[in-house]
Amino acid sequence: MPSYKAPVKDMMFLLNDVLQVGNYSNLPGYADATPDLVSAILEEAAKFAERELQPLNLSGDQEGCIRADNGDVTTPKGFKEAYAKYVEGGWAGLTADPEFGGQGLPHVLGICLEEMMVGANHSFAMYPGLSNGAMAAIRIDGTQEQKETYLPKMVEGLWTGTMNLTEPHCGTDLGMLRTKADPQADGTYKITGTKIFISAGEHDMSDNIIHLVLARLPDAPKGTKGISLFIVPKFLVKEDGSLGERNGVICGSLEHKMGIHANSTCVMNYDEATGYLIGEPNKGLRSMFIMMNAARLGVGVEGLGHAEVAYQNAVAYAKDRLQGRSLKGPQFPDKPADPIIVHADVRRNLMNARSFAEAARGIALWAALLVDQSHNAPTEEERDEAEDLVGLLTPIIKGVFTDRGFESSVACQQVFGGHGYVAEWGMEQFVRDARISQIYEGANGIQALDLVGRKLPSKGGKAIQMLFKLIGEEIAANKTAGGLDDIIEPMEKALASWQRATLWLMQNAMANPDNAGAASTPYMHLAGHVILGYMWLKMARVSKTALEDGTDDPTFHENKLVTARYYIKRRMTETRALLAEIESGSEELMALAAEAF
Amino acid sequence: MPSYKAPVKDMMFLLNDVLQVGNYSNLPGYADATPDLVSAILEEAAKFAERELQPLNLSGDQEGCIRADNGDVTTPKGFKEAYAKYVEGGWAGLTADPEFGGQGLPHVLGICLEEMMVGANHSFAMYPGLSNGAMAAIRIDGTQEQKETYLPKMVEGLWTGTMNLTEPHCGTDLGMLRTKADPQADGTYKITGTKIFISAGEHDMSDNIIHLVLARLPDAPKGTKGISLFIVPKFLVKEDGSLGERNGVICGSLEHKMGIHANSTCVMNYDEATGYLIGEPNKGLRSMFIMMNAARLGVGVEGLGHAEVAYQNAVAYAKDRLQGRSLKGPQFPDKPADPIIVHADVRRNLMNARSFAEAARGIALWAALLVDQSHNAPTEEERDEAEDLVGLLTPIIKGVFTDRGFESSVACQQVFGGHGYVAEWGMEQFVRDARISQIYEGANGIQALDLVGRKLPSKGGKAIQMLFKLIGEEIAANKTAGGLDDIIEPMEKALASWQRATLWLMQNAMANPDNAGAASTPYMHLAGHVILGYMWLKMARVSKTALEDGTDDPTFHENKLVTARYYIKRRMTETRALLAEIESGSEELMALAAEAF
Repeated sequence: MPSYKAPVKDMMFLLNDVLQVGNYSNLPGYADATPDLVSAILEEAAKFAERELQPLNLSGDQEGCIRADNGDVTTPKGFKEAYAKYVEGGWAGLTADPEFGGQGLPHVLGICLEEMMVGANHSFAMYPGLSNGAMAAIRIDGTQEQKETYLPKMVEGLWTGTMNLTEPHCGTDLGMLRTKADPQADGTYKITGTKIFISAGEHDMSDNIIHLVLARLPDAPKGTKGISLFIVPKFLVKEDGSLGERNGVICGSLEHKMGIHANSTCVMNYDEATGYLIGEPNKGLRSMFIMMNAARLGVGVEGLGHAEVAYQNAVAYAKDRLQGRSLKGPQFPDKPADPIIVHADVRRNLMNARSFAEAARGIALWAALLVDQSHNAPTEEERDEAEDLVGLLTPIIKGVFTDRGFESSVACQQVFGGHGYVAEWGMEQFVRDARISQIYEGANGIQALDLVGRKLPSKGGKAIQMLFKLIGEEIAANKTAGGLDDIIEPMEKALASWQRATLWLMQNAMANPDNAGAASTPYMHLAGHVILGYMWLKMARVSKTALEDGTDDPTFHENKLVTARYYIKRRMTETRALLAEIESGSEELMALAAEAF
Repeated sequence: MPSYKAPVKDMMFLLNDVLQVGNYSNLPGYADATPDLVSAILEEAAKFAERELQPLNLSGDQEGCIRADNGDVTTPKGFKEAYAKYVEGGWAGLTADPEFGGQGLPHVLGICLEEMMVGANHSFAMYPGLSNGAMAAIRIDGTQEQKETYLPKMVEGLWTGTMNLTEPHCGTDLGMLRTKADPQADGTYKITGTKIFISAGEHDMSDNIIHLVLARLPDAPKGTKGISLFIVPKFLVKEDGSLGERNGVICGSLEHKMGIHANSTCVMNYDEATGYLIGEPNKGLRSMFIMMNAARLGVGVEGLGHAEVAYQNAVAYAKDRLQGRSLKGPQFPDKPADPIIVHADVRRNLMNARSFAEAARGIALWAALLVDQSHNAPTEEERDEAEDLVGLLTPIIKGVFTDRGFESSVACQQVFGGHGYVAEWGMEQFVRDARISQIYEGANGIQALDLVGRKLPSKGGKAIQMLFKLIGEEIAANKTAGGLDDIIEPMEKALASWQRATLWLMQNAMANPDNAGAASTPYMHLAGHVILGYMWLKMARVSKTALEDGTDDPTFHENKLVTARYYIKRRMTETRALLAEIESGSEELMALAAEAF
């Protein structure tokens, strides 16, 4: 049976020692988040994830969700009770605005909670995950009345939320969507249409489900400029806040999927359902992107969660499984065979996952800190800078972290040999679950295009220049710290490769846009390597200083230095191939006629 | 619904134009295999795969196998009937020895049939696939009586075979196996023990199942030198060849697996089952390797089959799915959107799969030709050379082709966006099925160790020197052909990288064996790139000559040249990262204490 232990110690190291969140007491919530409180919250979150969610992961996969003829959906055994504990523990409102009942704690803590929930139970984590996106849209674009009607119950967790974008004929290209919104005399709208792939679209865990639905007004312009966003509650809400009649939206069927079986992926049928316009008419795509950006960071964190849990289980197996002998001769001559962790090739799979997850966690927390700064930093300049940086980081985090989360899950499954292919060990579920994160909230190819086509050139390349500067400064700081030359040199080369690839794009994408498309995915992965290497440099410097200054836990810091060296010296060799692939251009890629495929 | 079209035209091109099998009429069976006969056989095999096997693939996955309380196993609907047609069509004996009723056709045709069956239905293909391994062991190590008792029925397909190696506590390290063989007065043995992961261990498609079982004699030495191989038929065979009583072997349970649901993966319980020693006592591992080597080539071909079928379906979707516009502006302005095949990043996924599959097919057929030469070439020198070469190629084909088959299936699934994650499109099944090929018949990490630890140093590196020479000669031939300079230069570099990596291993593995372990997987993939590039060079030269000499089908050959350029110029850029990873050594990989993981 698989297990999960939340990486609380690593999170504390990143928050206190690496990101030093104590320095941000000018941001709302950060002054309250003392190391003691943070530690207490993370320990409680860990208990919830480990004790309530993890034990339901394998059974939830095997049981799946069941839809009754009337469209009601039953989640697997234990999910409803676990969700009740989630609400009872106040987890739904951890980082939410105190005006609507939230605890107003920093977003960095929300990210830690998300990682733990995904590591313990991806399918479960999606139910609150979708609510977060829906709440973000209402908070930013809703009227005061809409906020007061929906947010308090959602913040408490009694109601959940969904995002309804995709239709059978359009996912990436939302400009083609057909769901209609007919204006009514009372200011409401009648929503009619079919949405597919609606995660958590219907279930039995909350009193009400608040659907956020993209649809077209009758006079809407064609394409993406004619899309509006509507609130469509499962149960209409009366003026006193109590639940009224059932709205005209039902789950038409559940998808049969590769994984995340315990999350209900619904076809949602809207039949003159009552909806309420949120934000301005025809500006729905903007609101949708508010939901999507928060969601994309969260999905990136899923990749991290998958790598961590797959790594933990593969480590346990590699220490336990006796098979063959070390190439150096028996390491445990008294045992019938050595544990397979003696083998370099087994360690290669483990170290790849570990060295990714530890740095990815740092980047995810940094991005969450930037989100808080983008909303609440004291000056507009600081807010803008933070927003630009997190905008650039978001597609990299979503695309690279989920690709690596899947790759790590596959590599850790491989450590189990045949047992990894069998359901009871849980590894094959991690692989199947991890696969969805590369696809939803914008498939990773779309993330790569968002990166090279939108985020990179935005404001004349301001964000990428900032990032290059930050990485350069960290390299300089490592030089000053001394003793890290062996990782500084490959980092300098990798940064130079990223800069060269960026220059190549500037020079070649205008002349032939297919060069940008051809380069997009390798460029995203090249960027991913360099930002993960950047985080390793930061961690290495902190650990080196800790060892020099004296620490209670030298082993922890020595292991950080080993893992930093592994990532930067061995894993980042991939950057050479990625740069070469980028510079090979698009000619051979586009040369075949479509009918030749 | 997914579809499959057998790549007959590509197979004919490889057999007739690239490998020129017509030149090998001194090998048994080759003289009969005229281009017309080959074409007729491949067309019939294609019909069988496309019409009988492919329609059962998705339903077989969803239905799975069912075990009754008495241990009997029922295969999914249609499997029994399809297997009857397989027998009726004479496919079981296509390449088998005419002495036992086979058609004695070249192994290259057997490989074509295997690829088609896997592309159409991996689970089905495994039933005859395991029989092939069992027949190989009986043919080579069996007594004349054993051959006469079992082979005719197996060659006809009326009986199937299995390989029983793995036990719960040992897979890779067979030296630890515990199944016992007690000698009886009549010369037979009583076999007692439990075997796991036995593919096709029990089913309803054949009259009898001939299990080949590794077990220990009472006085056997410890470890791998004390393992013997036994024939244990499901039904004992009477002297007249008819079936006698049921033997003491039953299927104890079926594994719940990630994929290949329509193949019965059995726990087999042997309870004083009657067994017959095959080959010499305590020499069972040698016989097992006879089975394994044939099986490993076959498993490599599975990776090719997965890439091909995933590619075909992704192409169909990419041409059909309208979504967004080309970065260059609308390519089909009259349609609501462009088909997604206009996008360079979508083509990247397609071209990666295509450029792998077309070259892998060539390498697989070349390996099959070498197998025939190793058995039947006129001189011992030729036989030895062929055996050494195919020995070196086998772990590369098994490890690299299955890694790339999985990677291609994942990339092609990605083309479908959310639809790729849903069962009805069939793409997620390809991914789940492809995953097993990386694990069984020796996990790919074991293939990499076999390559660097056994095959590479064998006979003082004779095989690798032969291969380097062949590749060098092909590069020289391409120079003579002219007009291919743009692919010759990167091939020369890639070959030099492989040679440098080999030298690095020679210099560093003796001093520290962990350097070999650390380098093994990247070395295997570096080798894989170079041999696939070598096949692309061969194909490019043939196609260039065809275009110069005049051909009925210039488009076919022009497309080959484009795909050769794609593979060598863009895809092989990975060799740079692999060489760098190899040369980074094992220090950071082995630095952490086991308890630090």
